[in-house]
Amino acid sequence: MLMGFPEDYNDRVKRINEYLMRSLDVIEDKRLKAAMAHYPAAGGKRLRPLLATIVSEAVGGKQEKAVPFGAALEIVHNFTLVHDDVMDEDDTRRGIRTVHAQYGVPEAILAGDALFARAFEIVSGTDAEAEKVVKLVEIMAKAVRLLAEGQQMDMDFEDAKRISSDDYLKMIERKTAVLYSAAAQGGVIVGGGTEAQEEALFEYGRLIGLGFQIWDDVLDLRSDQETFGKPVLNDIRNGKKTLIVVNGLEDMNALERKQFLKVLGNRKATQDQLRMARDLLEDVGAVDHAVMVASGLVAKAKDRLSVLKESKHKEALKAFADYMVTRKT
Amino acid sequence: MLMGFPEDYNDRVKRINEYLMRSLDVIEDKRLKAAMAHYPAAGGKRLRPLLATIVSEAVGGKQEKAVPFGAALEIVHNFTLVHDDVMDEDDTRRGIRTVHAQYGVPEAILAGDALFARAFEIVSGTDAEAEKVVKLVEIMAKAVRLLAEGQQMDMDFEDAKRISSDDYLKMIERKTAVLYSAAAQGGVIVGGGTEAQEEALFEYGRLIGLGFQIWDDVLDLRSDQETFGKPVLNDIRNGKKTLIVVNGLEDMNALERKQFLKVLGNRKATQDQLRMARDLLEDVGAVDHAVMVASGLVAKAKDRLSVLKESKHKEALKAFADYMVTRKT
Repeated sequence: MLMGFPEDYNDRVKRINEYLMRSLDVIEDKRLKAAMAHYPAAGGKRLRPLLATIVSEAVGGKQEKAVPFGAALEIVHNFTLVHDDVMDEDDTRRGIRTVHAQYGVPEAILAGDALFARAFEIVSGTDAEAEKVVKLVEIMAKAVRLLAEGQQMDMDFEDAKRISSDDYLKMIERKTAVLYSAAAQGGVIVGGGTEAQEEALFEYGRLIGLGFQIWDDVLDLRSDQETFGKPVLNDIRNGKKTLIVVNGLEDMNALERKQFLKVLGNRKATQDQLRMARDLLEDVGAVDHAVMVASGLVAKAKDRLSVLKESKHKEALKAFADYMVTRKT
Repeated sequence: MLMGFPEDYNDRVKRINEYLMRSLDVIEDKRLKAAMAHYPAAGGKRLRPLLATIVSEAVGGKQEKAVPFGAALEIVHNFTLVHDDVMDEDDTRRGIRTVHAQYGVPEAILAGDALFARAFEIVSGTDAEAEKVVKLVEIMAKAVRLLAEGQQMDMDFEDAKRISSDDYLKMIERKTAVLYSAAAQGGVIVGGGTEAQEEALFEYGRLIGLGFQIWDDVLDLRSDQETFGKPVLNDIRNGKKTLIVVNGLEDMNALERKQFLKVLGNRKATQDQLRMARDLLEDVGAVDHAVMVASGLVAKAKDRLSVLKESKHKEALKAFADYMVTRKT
């Protein structure tokens, strides 16, 4: 029975999770292994491995062939979470203690590095022609390098006076979208697709990745902690210069801007102040605008799927794209 | 004119350095790039890339072909230094400020990650058959994973009551030797050597790597800051359980052991106390014993070179091995 995305893939997510956890068995030291497994074991939607496997099917390949590459990207994602949390000095992530809060900063740095190394070991063991494996390694290594540049931009933005919406989009392309474009491109490669498909699916992944992040920024303002699974209005408190904030600031009058900037990045702001700041963004239409931008990106992403033959997998990729900007969590 | 090792390779080291620094040009963000280049730009002996290139020649290949892989290992080495310095909270390294002391902890974590990613990008671009490139990626990824396990052991040892010499050797095999065995094995692969040569040179690299680390422990006790290029008697102050300390403790009488343990790991120890502790290690012959062990490892390493035809490159590898345990710095 078809239930839609992502429910149709519950079994596959289970198998991906098993693969993920098993891939850490090679680590001998118990403490290191526990720190490495801390986030992967806490669950997650596994969108990146799911994407890689569905794309592989959509180009006529087997879904299993994409599991190692997809899992490796998921491990890379987890490694960046571990290190980002150290850099941001966050003590909790989605209701659990962060790795460094639980195991200490040195252990967290090391666990991140070891996850990173494991990801490349996994990719290099992909069951495919050597030329393809080399390509997968290239894609993943470049993605991680760009992730680091994105994180750098994110840190630079905190002190920057003026950020444009282009700056923001460039930053999230690197910090968020690269793993989706890599997942989709890698799926084409292991699935045996054409170069045109590779290019189109890379772009599809990039666009839904951008949509995903902008939608995340929306949820931070419009959701509540129980539904979202993490504290809301956090981006305002942390002074994040999201697309919504960038556009909102442009459209506020001088008085509104002054009020808003008093709250943005003020870690001691009260809930009332945070809500006031959110209302200012809503009032000038900046949140609605972001929703429109995210939907537009996803629509463009779906256009790119014209390189694929009709199939239920192609339909799944459309549903996948829609899910990125309709999900509640 | 032959001057011996490493002087004969001064020009090659220059070219390796140019390659290394050029490989960071792709980084867009100036601050990130500067943090990444901080250690590579400070120089170094480049033993790992040198080893890879000489081995490549020794099996009949071209030395240039091993430069990317060797440089990638050097970048990995630098990345581990950046992160290790954060973990150890060291403010200086060989007379310069550490990356986190200069740029802050978040930047240092990120710069290390970006170096790591670049290393894999470089290896994946190696000019060789795809099968060989995949093997190089596997070797490097496994090496980094083992490096993390070695660093974990090193941290665990600080709190451990009793460390055996086997524990110590297992730790330095991971923390130091893996990059030498990887360099030598990789050199055989790009140079087009046989499987028997691959196995033998891996072991050669492992043995000289162990010798290198034990000799480093000796220099910390027997050298002076000017000659060694970094503060001496540091391992005692930091409570490192080196082979010398492990063996020394076994051979001291109860009173000596009590005196020694008062100084080991005491960050406030005076120079006089540190010298007294060193003298205790010398008196029971633990330093001489370590010199013997290191020389024995290097002799065994040179035996492994019997898989190579006679050539000046083979002679260079013998000189390389000897250098590991005779160097002053």
